[in-house]
Amino acid sequence: MTADTNPLDAVLAAARAFLGERLSINASIREQHSRGEDANPPVLPDAVAFVETTAEVSKLLALCNAHGVPVTPFGAGTSLEGHVVPVRRGISLDLSRMAAILEVNAEDMDCLVEPGVSRHQLNEHLRDQGLFFPVDPGSHCSLGGMVATRASGTNAVRYGTMREAVMGLEVVLADGRVITTGGRARKSSSGYDLTRLFVGSEGTLGVVTKIRLRLQGIPEATTAAVCQFDSLKDAVETVIMTMQAGVPVARIELADADQMRASIAYSKLPYEPLPTLFLEFHGSPAGVREQAEAVEAIASDMGGKGFAWAEDAETRNKLWKARHDAWWAATALYPGCRGITTDVCVPISRLAEAIVGAKEEAVAAGQNTCIVGHVGDGNYHCVILFPADDPQGLEKAWALDRRIVARGLALGGTCSGEHGVGLGKREFLVDEHGPAVLDVMRSLKAAMDPRGILNPGKMLPDAA
Amino acid sequence: MTADTNPLDAVLAAARAFLGERLSINASIREQHSRGEDANPPVLPDAVAFVETTAEVSKLLALCNAHGVPVTPFGAGTSLEGHVVPVRRGISLDLSRMAAILEVNAEDMDCLVEPGVSRHQLNEHLRDQGLFFPVDPGSHCSLGGMVATRASGTNAVRYGTMREAVMGLEVVLADGRVITTGGRARKSSSGYDLTRLFVGSEGTLGVVTKIRLRLQGIPEATTAAVCQFDSLKDAVETVIMTMQAGVPVARIELADADQMRASIAYSKLPYEPLPTLFLEFHGSPAGVREQAEAVEAIASDMGGKGFAWAEDAETRNKLWKARHDAWWAATALYPGCRGITTDVCVPISRLAEAIVGAKEEAVAAGQNTCIVGHVGDGNYHCVILFPADDPQGLEKAWALDRRIVARGLALGGTCSGEHGVGLGKREFLVDEHGPAVLDVMRSLKAAMDPRGILNPGKMLPDAA
Repeated sequence: MTADTNPLDAVLAAARAFLGERLSINASIREQHSRGEDANPPVLPDAVAFVETTAEVSKLLALCNAHGVPVTPFGAGTSLEGHVVPVRRGISLDLSRMAAILEVNAEDMDCLVEPGVSRHQLNEHLRDQGLFFPVDPGSHCSLGGMVATRASGTNAVRYGTMREAVMGLEVVLADGRVITTGGRARKSSSGYDLTRLFVGSEGTLGVVTKIRLRLQGIPEATTAAVCQFDSLKDAVETVIMTMQAGVPVARIELADADQMRASIAYSKLPYEPLPTLFLEFHGSPAGVREQAEAVEAIASDMGGKGFAWAEDAETRNKLWKARHDAWWAATALYPGCRGITTDVCVPISRLAEAIVGAKEEAVAAGQNTCIVGHVGDGNYHCVILFPADDPQGLEKAWALDRRIVARGLALGGTCSGEHGVGLGKREFLVDEHGPAVLDVMRSLKAAMDPRGILNPGKMLPDAA
Repeated sequence: MTADTNPLDAVLAAARAFLGERLSINASIREQHSRGEDANPPVLPDAVAFVETTAEVSKLLALCNAHGVPVTPFGAGTSLEGHVVPVRRGISLDLSRMAAILEVNAEDMDCLVEPGVSRHQLNEHLRDQGLFFPVDPGSHCSLGGMVATRASGTNAVRYGTMREAVMGLEVVLADGRVITTGGRARKSSSGYDLTRLFVGSEGTLGVVTKIRLRLQGIPEATTAAVCQFDSLKDAVETVIMTMQAGVPVARIELADADQMRASIAYSKLPYEPLPTLFLEFHGSPAGVREQAEAVEAIASDMGGKGFAWAEDAETRNKLWKARHDAWWAATALYPGCRGITTDVCVPISRLAEAIVGAKEEAVAAGQNTCIVGHVGDGNYHCVILFPADDPQGLEKAWALDRRIVARGLALGGTCSGEHGVGLGKREFLVDEHGPAVLDVMRSLKAAMDPRGILNPGKMLPDAA
């Protein structure tokens, strides 16, 4: 390298020495790393690095930091908010080959994994040990991406989100230093909670290379149930009353009539196209019966019908697969359409007005939407469909998204329950948190990544 | 103020203008703010400010920051690690008069309180609404102090610690800016988790002026139980097997034979001076019976005897009062003695060797110790007693403390489960986390408090 080499060339030349063929400038590989599953415009990275060890990540970041070259971490590429789009180009850091399950400590119910491990892979591995990992976003995402976005899913109402599930991390800092945060004890008051600072930091403060997770015991008994309602409001009120009654539901998911139409067609579900709650109960055989009966009584008071129990694993698996396929079902229902999704989460007491109001906004805008939600947490997703060939389609969808988010914020909610900020939700951060909070976030970012190489352009809106 | 006024005088003169008599330089008030409940040498602050509003905290911090005058927050003064000792003098910021319960949202099970509210006061207030706040350190501490130390207590095994309980905070930053972190939604992926950065930050990053807490529903049924064992190891093995069996105990507390001797005398408990487990079960009437029977079977296999159920509230209250009075009981058993306490927390699988080893260290050192523990979390306290009139007594106690902590760290544990670092645990931070983590913590501290006015000398060891 000479003084007049450009920074990118300097990084590529030095990185090729230890990555070899795993540093790629192949066009189709760059194209695969230009976008996630969202509708943001793709951007090609200059190169893609397929790292295999923490030491490689450390060397690469030290290089990029020295030369000021942007690094955008890439896991399974399932982000819904543009996290993996390398908007300032540079290196796409592909962690998918770091996919080893390093430890399972069954007696302490924890494990240590690399970031490229998927939740499916982990649960497959755990099954024989009577343990499972509960956090379950809909997509086939990597655990590293789930750390980055503070992900959750259908089980969060009972078992918490990645905030609760991550016990500690190995992180490579911007300058290549490697730290280990947290530990194996169930609790600690020993210094700043760096673990939770990195969880949800979207690759902007460091690159996660190992993840210690808390596991859960597979419950002795599991029962699912499905209940349908004539009105969206009655379904949501049933959720609110269930939560307020303190029933420890493991899952309580909503699909509106449009989503049910989509899922019935896509997943061959034997239900009516009506607002529907999907529930699951975990515990002892007597305990799950008690829980299910409590919810059945509440649902029945609210006009719920056909409270169908599903005790066998096959029916349950079909049900939850259908729930996880909701996004694909929604897009399949409207051929030629693409979708974006909102991710608002509100206090449970405001959930009915939030969801009913969101649907009214969508109807008033004349946009097709399907609503699903992790409603026990107050989190709902409006999948807004738009014709892929309408040049105004995406902008109209985003305009509706903005109105739905604004309603959620006005009800004391957050613009993102689980998908993260990325590119898509940056504009809402000042409204949600106020300018002083953003200044604090920027000062933390500056302390951790002074040259701004880590996933630049994400999460924090540009300063006014 | 003139250029040659000293910084402290400048702050006092300006602060007196808005605090009046509530800014005190009275000797006995300064003495009351010179120490917590720990054995660290007291240090008198230059003045004590009894603030009543966020605006006052903001004005005072802006002043102190401008003049570089140290500020040490003070709540109920129950710290066990020297947090409230103003080692660099300056202002002791007494928040005990900010003790209003501002909101209780029963339907969402959250509340908003000022930092001077005690957990007793909050629970008294909540009782009629069927709700309670579960985090219960032994002392009569303030919720602000509990945020600062990431406190927990006997219920943490079921309901989590302050890490899980705090939904959001109002914080005054070093320069007087006021921010609100978190929110009322049950989860969020909207930006860095500032709430959890402040929880456990021991007043070194900002001063907490409002706290939003998640509440719990008072369980339909509650049962307590007491079980005694011939050996410490059998008692601890019972805990390990109970946790591994996934029984959702609400409380599972250990007292060793010496602690039982102390508590039997102090709290008039009708038990034998043997290693003892105190348990509590929360749920439906059938659920608590099921849980208690499961633990009874495990305890019986481990040679436990006299599994005594306590279903009535009076017996239960007496039991938990005795547990919370363990520290006072221990010091009362050894007249003329003072005590310090360890706070190690280890992975549950290592708990038996950790506790048995700690007791062996104490016996080898010839020191009287009583052991109590929130053992469901792997957290145990060795109360080390030493004669108050022995000039070497405190140093000998600390030497034993160091050996017990070193054993805990070697087993994958943390030096502090719930009391925090303060002065007393600073020396263990490098061993526990490594130097790079401490560098990161220092860079965050520098970003948030560039002049180093906030509780200086605490948590972070001086850089080597």
